[in-house]
Amino acid sequence: MLPATHPLSDGRTAGSRLVRALRGDRPETLPVWFMRQAGRSLPEYRELRVGTAMLDACLDPALASEITLQPVRRHGVDAGIFFSDIVVPIKLAGVDVEIVPGRGPVLGAPVRSAADVDALGRLEPEALAPITEAVARTVGELGSTPLIGFAGAPFTLAAYLVEGGPSKDHIRARTMMHADPETWSRLLDWAADVSGAFLRAQVLAGASAAQLFDSWVGSLSRADYVGRVAPHSARALGHVTDLGVPRIHFGVGSGEVLADMATVGGHGDAVDAVGVDWRLPLDEAVQRVGAARTVQGNIDPAMLAAPWAVLEAHVRDVVRRGGTARAHVVNLGHGVPPETDPTVLTRVVELVHSLGDGTGLGGTGLGTGSAGA
Amino acid sequence: MLPATHPLSDGRTAGSRLVRALRGDRPETLPVWFMRQAGRSLPEYRELRVGTAMLDACLDPALASEITLQPVRRHGVDAGIFFSDIVVPIKLAGVDVEIVPGRGPVLGAPVRSAADVDALGRLEPEALAPITEAVARTVGELGSTPLIGFAGAPFTLAAYLVEGGPSKDHIRARTMMHADPETWSRLLDWAADVSGAFLRAQVLAGASAAQLFDSWVGSLSRADYVGRVAPHSARALGHVTDLGVPRIHFGVGSGEVLADMATVGGHGDAVDAVGVDWRLPLDEAVQRVGAARTVQGNIDPAMLAAPWAVLEAHVRDVVRRGGTARAHVVNLGHGVPPETDPTVLTRVVELVHSLGDGTGLGGTGLGTGSAGA
Repeated sequence: MLPATHPLSDGRTAGSRLVRALRGDRPETLPVWFMRQAGRSLPEYRELRVGTAMLDACLDPALASEITLQPVRRHGVDAGIFFSDIVVPIKLAGVDVEIVPGRGPVLGAPVRSAADVDALGRLEPEALAPITEAVARTVGELGSTPLIGFAGAPFTLAAYLVEGGPSKDHIRARTMMHADPETWSRLLDWAADVSGAFLRAQVLAGASAAQLFDSWVGSLSRADYVGRVAPHSARALGHVTDLGVPRIHFGVGSGEVLADMATVGGHGDAVDAVGVDWRLPLDEAVQRVGAARTVQGNIDPAMLAAPWAVLEAHVRDVVRRGGTARAHVVNLGHGVPPETDPTVLTRVVELVHSLGDGTGLGGTGLGTGSAGA
Repeated sequence: MLPATHPLSDGRTAGSRLVRALRGDRPETLPVWFMRQAGRSLPEYRELRVGTAMLDACLDPALASEITLQPVRRHGVDAGIFFSDIVVPIKLAGVDVEIVPGRGPVLGAPVRSAADVDALGRLEPEALAPITEAVARTVGELGSTPLIGFAGAPFTLAAYLVEGGPSKDHIRARTMMHADPETWSRLLDWAADVSGAFLRAQVLAGASAAQLFDSWVGSLSRADYVGRVAPHSARALGHVTDLGVPRIHFGVGSGEVLADMATVGGHGDAVDAVGVDWRLPLDEAVQRVGAARTVQGNIDPAMLAAPWAVLEAHVRDVVRRGGTARAHVVNLGHGVPPETDPTVLTRVVELVHSLGDGTGLGGTGLGTGSAGA
């Protein structure tokens, strides 16, 4: 149960476009937000971050809150996304990890053996205090704009843990999956519980929705996803099931497993919404995930640097194809590229908000738009 | 027309397992080779390369030939793959590019504007002399074992040219595709002709098959692939159409465009074989590319470091699923990882060669194998 003072309980956000769309309603105006809207593309963010390492910023409640609020003020998006990182909870559980600029998360030592997994620490509830405080501050400022909490899915976290840093195709992690399935399963359960606790803390502190990021899921075969990854993703999501917040499940290059991501491989309760990257036309994605799911996405981030006429045609095409879903939360197909001109993002928000409920553009999804040939 | 002294014309390789399988026959023993078999995983390669930069090695005919032959001698594979790199022809056309160890191809200056494309040089036929000489030497040693020539597809080359180096999701290249389609088209035509000339030189000098690598095709939507990439891939492949050698088309994360890769988007003659990475079960890939195509792949490179029993079960599963195709060239789903134990590769060759024509394992492809749940 959520506290009575939670924004979803006390009437602040339950009627917001985002929450309504995630729950399957189609509001009169489409909701829109951007993955990675809080961060790199904003000059006010770069200014605030001078002299502060990424993970230190994530653990400074005042700073994390201010960074979360910046894009909401600037762009007028329909949601804040909590400024943090998927490795924050593993750091709070004692893993030696830093985020190296231009590279990504790098670990002091990779986790590759049964003994390495045994040695992983616990995430004590009190360690999450900076998260709780940052979320509470942010929600206090956001008013009727919902905050989305998030966490990394166990596979994506394990890809960093086993490799020791970013990697192409996550070969060492996928080797462990097959070479030592018992250790693999324990590692992913550990990651699921750490991510789940991180997500639950955000929701209890006031987040009105929860997104699980399985960024690297596209490196898996469907059999590996369903058999060796999805059970652990279900475990992570299970940490917030009883709270009743809408849940979004996102991956990159996930076309082959999109239906399985909707049902979390059948291992737990299905999610409310599925994030779709830019590879798959949104009407095709709707067919894969079915009518019982909201879709989120799928503006191609590469289009943000194209001339406005090209970008506008693409956004209209995405919205038109999204008109075939029960509801559509407009977003990018992946994070905002760092070099994005933020005025373009504001203009996209204005455009999306001018398109009504998104079904007036020819909802059969057969428009060609600029993404076609 | 191939010269009368070409290995495919004079009887040396036309009856080889590889060439027969690519042409649609199913030889009594399955052919097997490994992408990146020539190179990083072999101690004899690392020894030879000491003190020589990658692209210098590619352009030294004696060295390139010896490196090409090493894995054929060691593993008993059914084909040599010419030791080179997809950026070799762009270097020979005057582009300032080096291969930085641990990173990949890095350009002196990226190619981002119409003027940059105008300034690209020509690949003069005489510049290809080191390639021709290396291939001729190699083929002279290989006897009845066919050599596979290869080149990078225009999109994958353009991804390096526009980004200036390796990149995630190739955002700048994909922006150019939409922001300036005319310049994009000219750049890809240039890349197609440079790659095509490189491929043709290898075939004329004695290669018995030609593979086009579109490694980064998985970052594209299907509409972008068919409309803005495949026409140029067809142009590259068109450089060897009249020579009549079998042609293989390979990409990574290519499940959504596999059928289009088989037909090259309908823009030219279809290829003989389609390479399949590890994400898609091979019987599913066969359904997508149809009965008129040979498939190549799709052992998961991550399995090479798993215990032998796990790897063996996986190879048997791949072969069983490949039994549904007209023919199957066994290979990895991507290149040999550098840290691979080469004795494992030799053992995989022995295993594959013990499995007969690959249809005796239950060709309905419904075996679960170790890749299943």
